[in-house]
Amino acid sequence: MEIRTYIEQLAQRSKKASFALRSVPAIHKNRALSAIAGFLDGSRNRIQEANAEDLRRGKSSGLSAAMLDRLALDTKRIDAMIQSVREIAAFEDPVGEVIGVKRPQGFILEKVRVPIGVIAVIYESRPNVTIDAAALCLKSGNGVILRGGSEAYESNRVLTEIVREGLESADLPQDSVCFVESKAHESVNWLVKQENSVDLVIPRGGESLIRAVVREATIPVIKHYKGVCHLYIDEDADLDMAVNVVHNAKVQRPGTCNALETLLVHVNVSERFLPMMGEKLKDVELRGCERTRKIFTGVKAATEEDYYAEFLDLILAVRVVDSMDEAIAHIETYGSKHTDGIITRDVKKAQKFSELVDSAVVTINASTRLSDGGVFGLGAEIGISTDKLHARGPMGVKDLTCVKWVVRGNGHLRIL
Amino acid sequence: MEIRTYIEQLAQRSKKASFALRSVPAIHKNRALSAIAGFLDGSRNRIQEANAEDLRRGKSSGLSAAMLDRLALDTKRIDAMIQSVREIAAFEDPVGEVIGVKRPQGFILEKVRVPIGVIAVIYESRPNVTIDAAALCLKSGNGVILRGGSEAYESNRVLTEIVREGLESADLPQDSVCFVESKAHESVNWLVKQENSVDLVIPRGGESLIRAVVREATIPVIKHYKGVCHLYIDEDADLDMAVNVVHNAKVQRPGTCNALETLLVHVNVSERFLPMMGEKLKDVELRGCERTRKIFTGVKAATEEDYYAEFLDLILAVRVVDSMDEAIAHIETYGSKHTDGIITRDVKKAQKFSELVDSAVVTINASTRLSDGGVFGLGAEIGISTDKLHARGPMGVKDLTCVKWVVRGNGHLRIL
Repeated sequence: MEIRTYIEQLAQRSKKASFALRSVPAIHKNRALSAIAGFLDGSRNRIQEANAEDLRRGKSSGLSAAMLDRLALDTKRIDAMIQSVREIAAFEDPVGEVIGVKRPQGFILEKVRVPIGVIAVIYESRPNVTIDAAALCLKSGNGVILRGGSEAYESNRVLTEIVREGLESADLPQDSVCFVESKAHESVNWLVKQENSVDLVIPRGGESLIRAVVREATIPVIKHYKGVCHLYIDEDADLDMAVNVVHNAKVQRPGTCNALETLLVHVNVSERFLPMMGEKLKDVELRGCERTRKIFTGVKAATEEDYYAEFLDLILAVRVVDSMDEAIAHIETYGSKHTDGIITRDVKKAQKFSELVDSAVVTINASTRLSDGGVFGLGAEIGISTDKLHARGPMGVKDLTCVKWVVRGNGHLRIL
Repeated sequence: MEIRTYIEQLAQRSKKASFALRSVPAIHKNRALSAIAGFLDGSRNRIQEANAEDLRRGKSSGLSAAMLDRLALDTKRIDAMIQSVREIAAFEDPVGEVIGVKRPQGFILEKVRVPIGVIAVIYESRPNVTIDAAALCLKSGNGVILRGGSEAYESNRVLTEIVREGLESADLPQDSVCFVESKAHESVNWLVKQENSVDLVIPRGGESLIRAVVREATIPVIKHYKGVCHLYIDEDADLDMAVNVVHNAKVQRPGTCNALETLLVHVNVSERFLPMMGEKLKDVELRGCERTRKIFTGVKAATEEDYYAEFLDLILAVRVVDSMDEAIAHIETYGSKHTDGIITRDVKKAQKFSELVDSAVVTINASTRLSDGGVFGLGAEIGISTDKLHARGPMGVKDLTCVKWVVRGNGHLRIL
């Protein structure tokens, strides 16, 4: 079959399933989630065989050790997937919540939380995203179409099969969770054009994936883009606190999107602060502006590219600035609107910074690493949205719903 | 200057102005809105001269009488524009509202309402949209770029000039409200690609405009699309109520997007209901399915096209269905996800209908004409969103904002 036709039919099937999901009660969805958790537990061998196949291919095609590590599903990671499904089952159901009730002109007006419809999730490498996305979309009453990276094809395919067996055993349509059985990039291009069946596209991944999806899509997209996170050390900062926060933000888990990538330091404290910081961040490679390199001789010069970079590694760009405004302008130019923070004792400056920095999360005297759905108490997250519309920052199960207005009248008419 | 360069520079100017607007206090924005209302009041001759020019051109290029009427700005319509700006000034300010506060791990976590940034509004004919969009975007702290229809070019240009004079007199950047001084369609195509400066595109208008914007845009779009509104008369309906509601929904103001376009009638009541309705809707042209035409002999047959049509006129498509499921399937196929309703005494069916019909507004025993920002108590509306994400249904000034998370710590670090 042509890829275009295949994708159109898959999207139609997903839409049909999502129609059924619209009015499925919470208890029924949770029964399906429990079944899925049980089936995953009973299918460990099958999962690991498929994963071994992906790993074999990955090795022979020369994937890096880091990529292979992200791809691997050991017992601990399978445990974590099962645990995640059980946790999602235990969440409060987001569908049907009445957000507001009014009686504007005699009739009852309700604003109700409802499923979005069909969500296409396009992602790379880690196979656990398959399970998280499937469980979160089911919980929120949405059909989902999964298009994982080709390097994890066999693992994702088997995980989806198991999910569909769980759905069937709980009498829900198997097509509630669909999997794109094509490694061709063309399948992504057709998927993001199914505006008659698909309501939302969530791409998670690198710049080239996101750009391709945005360019091709005729459907709303919520981007889960990189995190080029900044901390600005103000002249009024508590420098001891600043050193600890910078260390935590950079070192605690450098491979995550909320880790620190660029440090901005006010010139009035740079000569005191930078040596203190250098002492604590011994294992971090610095790339500095000219003024930074006067303090740390021998440090590499930071390039334009470094300021745009998400290093995801023990590398930190450092720039001395003359004012908070200069710091904010730097973040506006080079940032990714993810998470950016200030260290200062001055409440007014903190407020100004939080208003002017156009990021999903702004931290004041705190580590950028706190920007996380788990830490924020949202439960499992589908990701961290770097877009502004609909959902911004850590995106939980509620953000996979939309609203509907229900007018309950008794023959009410419009008069004026 | 090339159109592309012109649009890029305009978008940059708007972005710069929107940066300043982010932290402007409510009182300052309201002062500007009052100044704008005053300047409009003092510029009636200038507005009417420009409008006369548009009307002259419209007549000589053969615009329909209905189009010319939409274009015309008489004293009453200018009064209404001024009134609208004053009302928007009096609204509660949406920016800075703290939507939620938590202390998940010792630090304070706030979810705060903030402006979106720069909004491009693309619209047709009615010049009052220029003033409404400018005032609503200013109120919500957003920069706006206005691209009105070429038929209203002179009116829109003069109205924007007056707004900018008002902004200047209140010491706010003139570029808070920008106007695309180009009638070329190419300017729209470039405008919707300024993803580095523009955050949201709102197209209001016909199908071809919306399709062109969605196809070209690399920026999130919230569509304000047509309303193909349905009422389903259930077998358990109060038929007297049904007649009154259908009459109100169709006749009270047929040219609006929330007016009724297609009526679906359960077969068990069609022989009683349709003659009652025909009596009351004497001035309405019916287009019926086969079974309808057995009751109303001489009525035109409804075509596929009629079921998709937004008549905006005293025309009604009528179809007899065998069940509520068939009615819901009809709405799913032909509807525009705007406003659809049911007339029934059966609470269970009403609930099922409201869950399964995928529209922004579902009415139960009430006129579709109630689907309106004013009736719903939202104040002035930027329009009625037929999209599901971010804002759905009547879209008020709050829907022109997004959220930001602010973490207020005291050296808080991520531990796990």
